[in-house]
Amino acid sequence: MEITLIKKLYRESENFNGKDVKISGWVRTLRDSKTFGFIELNDGSFFKNIQIVFEENLENFKDITKLPICTSLSVEGTIVLTPESKQPFEIKAKKITIEGKSSSDYPLQKKRHTLEYLRTIAHLRPRSNMFSAVFRVRSLAAYAVHKFFNEKGFVYVNTPIITGSDCEGAGEMFRLTTLDMNNVPKDKDGKIDFSQDFFGKETNLTVSGQLSAETLALAFRNVYTFGPTFRAENSNTARHAAEFWMIEPEMAFAELKDYMDVAEDLVKYIINYVLENAPEEMEFFNSFVDKELFAKLDNVANSNFGRICYTEAVDILIKSGEKFQYPVEWGIDLQTEHERYLTENVFKKPIFVTDYPKDIKAFYMRLNDDGKTVAAADLLVPGVGEIIGGSQREERLNVLEERIEQMGLKKEDYWWYLELRKYGETKHSGFGLGFERILMYMTGVSNIRDVIPFPRTTGSADF
Amino acid sequence: MEITLIKKLYRESENFNGKDVKISGWVRTLRDSKTFGFIELNDGSFFKNIQIVFEENLENFKDITKLPICTSLSVEGTIVLTPESKQPFEIKAKKITIEGKSSSDYPLQKKRHTLEYLRTIAHLRPRSNMFSAVFRVRSLAAYAVHKFFNEKGFVYVNTPIITGSDCEGAGEMFRLTTLDMNNVPKDKDGKIDFSQDFFGKETNLTVSGQLSAETLALAFRNVYTFGPTFRAENSNTARHAAEFWMIEPEMAFAELKDYMDVAEDLVKYIINYVLENAPEEMEFFNSFVDKELFAKLDNVANSNFGRICYTEAVDILIKSGEKFQYPVEWGIDLQTEHERYLTENVFKKPIFVTDYPKDIKAFYMRLNDDGKTVAAADLLVPGVGEIIGGSQREERLNVLEERIEQMGLKKEDYWWYLELRKYGETKHSGFGLGFERILMYMTGVSNIRDVIPFPRTTGSADF
Repeated sequence: MEITLIKKLYRESENFNGKDVKISGWVRTLRDSKTFGFIELNDGSFFKNIQIVFEENLENFKDITKLPICTSLSVEGTIVLTPESKQPFEIKAKKITIEGKSSSDYPLQKKRHTLEYLRTIAHLRPRSNMFSAVFRVRSLAAYAVHKFFNEKGFVYVNTPIITGSDCEGAGEMFRLTTLDMNNVPKDKDGKIDFSQDFFGKETNLTVSGQLSAETLALAFRNVYTFGPTFRAENSNTARHAAEFWMIEPEMAFAELKDYMDVAEDLVKYIINYVLENAPEEMEFFNSFVDKELFAKLDNVANSNFGRICYTEAVDILIKSGEKFQYPVEWGIDLQTEHERYLTENVFKKPIFVTDYPKDIKAFYMRLNDDGKTVAAADLLVPGVGEIIGGSQREERLNVLEERIEQMGLKKEDYWWYLELRKYGETKHSGFGLGFERILMYMTGVSNIRDVIPFPRTTGSADF
Repeated sequence: MEITLIKKLYRESENFNGKDVKISGWVRTLRDSKTFGFIELNDGSFFKNIQIVFEENLENFKDITKLPICTSLSVEGTIVLTPESKQPFEIKAKKITIEGKSSSDYPLQKKRHTLEYLRTIAHLRPRSNMFSAVFRVRSLAAYAVHKFFNEKGFVYVNTPIITGSDCEGAGEMFRLTTLDMNNVPKDKDGKIDFSQDFFGKETNLTVSGQLSAETLALAFRNVYTFGPTFRAENSNTARHAAEFWMIEPEMAFAELKDYMDVAEDLVKYIINYVLENAPEEMEFFNSFVDKELFAKLDNVANSNFGRICYTEAVDILIKSGEKFQYPVEWGIDLQTEHERYLTENVFKKPIFVTDYPKDIKAFYMRLNDDGKTVAAADLLVPGVGEIIGGSQREERLNVLEERIEQMGLKKEDYWWYLELRKYGETKHSGFGLGFERILMYMTGVSNIRDVIPFPRTTGSADF
């Protein structure tokens, strides 16, 4: 008999009433009396379990009543709709076959575990309700990203993870090497001889695909990356991981306004897609993780995001009379407390803050006519602060070269990036969305370690 | 006036006849006589260019005739269908605005360049026909992968790139470090003190997400990874890169046969999706890269893949009387020459070779009842040889432990992998498809460096 997935049974239960089916999965709970018992079985295809009723007429009845949690089974039986019960239907078992018996010391017993404990069993935690929901939402959100850009005709590009330049400028990097670290080869000046390394030079893990993505945007117009990025920053917070996934779209013939339009559409698209395709999981988060979740997401999905320039934002913050830990004046980088005040107390919805002082932003952001600010914009959302950063890119060769020099960087390191401006420059814009940031936002999960299957953070690369 | 994308004009040209539109893009060719001229403009949205006719009534007519290739323009004009010409329509320009003038030393002039030369300008080559087609097909094929698995209810999982184990067993690894290589800290035994490294231990770049993916398959039933993987192997061939993308599905409650069914469906799905969604690009490859391409792909898309066990395959090779460079006997690892002989000369279609000798396969492959072979299968395709490798995974704890010991590996290194067998073991299977391998197959491009935007190979990590 062919296996039927539990998801199909839930989605089409009317069609299965009275029919015989075969399913397979893992025991989540088991309780029995002398003559019958109930098993909650999860087959991995769906967030919810299916209830199996078994009775003493089964030849292995006794064995089944003694099975440990997480044993894998296959079950043949009849679907019975149960409109008066909590679950919409159940299976009356005709035959239960034990596939793999679990052990009684299985660590994920029914009681509630702390998230900290569950991180120590990262190989088993996807079997808990919480992580079953988180990683299923992660998968759906990733698909939503690809679907969104595919529908808009963006080309998906894989920019390199291993980079030969240490000049991406977005953060501390991990060095990569195949040199013998017990006996590092030196050149005649006593410096490390990277010419003997795998790539013949020093290499690192990328902190951003942006500069590479720009080269592709100037061929394909609209492109996006979606891949892992790395920061070797020693920041042991709930929001930082050493390895995380980023979505970095770049668009030729696009101004700052165009980036903001696409970013706003993208965020709404992901949220709506997940709400529609993971109703059970989202219900779980709203009930058990953050009771305000649906209200928060509705607010994002249904509001027009505000747009306000940095200078106005600073004015509002100063005039607010609010006591901030970091005092506000024009020229400072906005802190999370400032960002959250603006988006939560003032606007009460997501806002883009635009046109930041050039000195606190990267060299590649387009200089505004005032000579003091750049065409950058960050998206701030209530409850989190920044989740997207982006800008129009400086397309004018001479201005870009000047900015590189002002920042104390070397033009030679950017020869190919500069050539993009020499050969067919156009205005263009792009942004970066931290995938885990939006997952945390959508699920209410507050630690980045809990939205990544096997997180890598300072001091921790287990599994 | 809103910009219209060239792709839309091509796909809906009937609707645009006689209408005024605005487009923007880059000049691919330009020729002129005294009173009029033609521009082939590419806007990145589509493989093909659009022909623009401009006449001396334009106020900047003279300037336009002198523009270098790759200058970016915006053009307003009227669409005129030209059913008698090579191109289905053209634009009669009313206004041409120069956005960014290119330089006359632009390296990608119309003449044909070697692929080797184009690799030295990897930041510009996506603007050539060849690479415009390759990377657009890459994007579509990636989307096809996600769409295929989404339709089948597989959960997309991101397994870690940074791994703390050096026991994935699939190849040489890149070490990752933030230690000062000029002054590597040593412990009291004189060994490198990795406790001072970022993660507090030695870490490497992953060579395969499989072991992690298995943990997730035992929660979600059907999962797949699609991400970068790394090999620090000093093999300077046309088929090997140090950084490449892999698709690694893992399926619980699945036997070897089930993996082969899914893999066969996947390969056909990707090919059909790309043929359908990139007809112009595929036509280009069939005309300019490999004249047999369509015939080859049709053969794959429309045949039932053969299935033959290793022992039979060896028999056929021995009986063939063919002179191979590597002599054939039971127990050897099949070489590309053997694989190609089987798939090209004997079967003339893709085949799975199954049940390899255990000694030439990895420890995690399921031991067959004969005690000599494992439930592994490789997919061989004509013209290439192996493009997929996979197996049923050993789910029996005692057998797996024994295999680990036999291979001289340490059980402690695999504690969490072994626990998957202790808690709810099920039969399960999975496979790995090298994304670049199938891209090479689908495009006819014979060097892996030409299907990756910025390839990383021995001695080369430019851009």
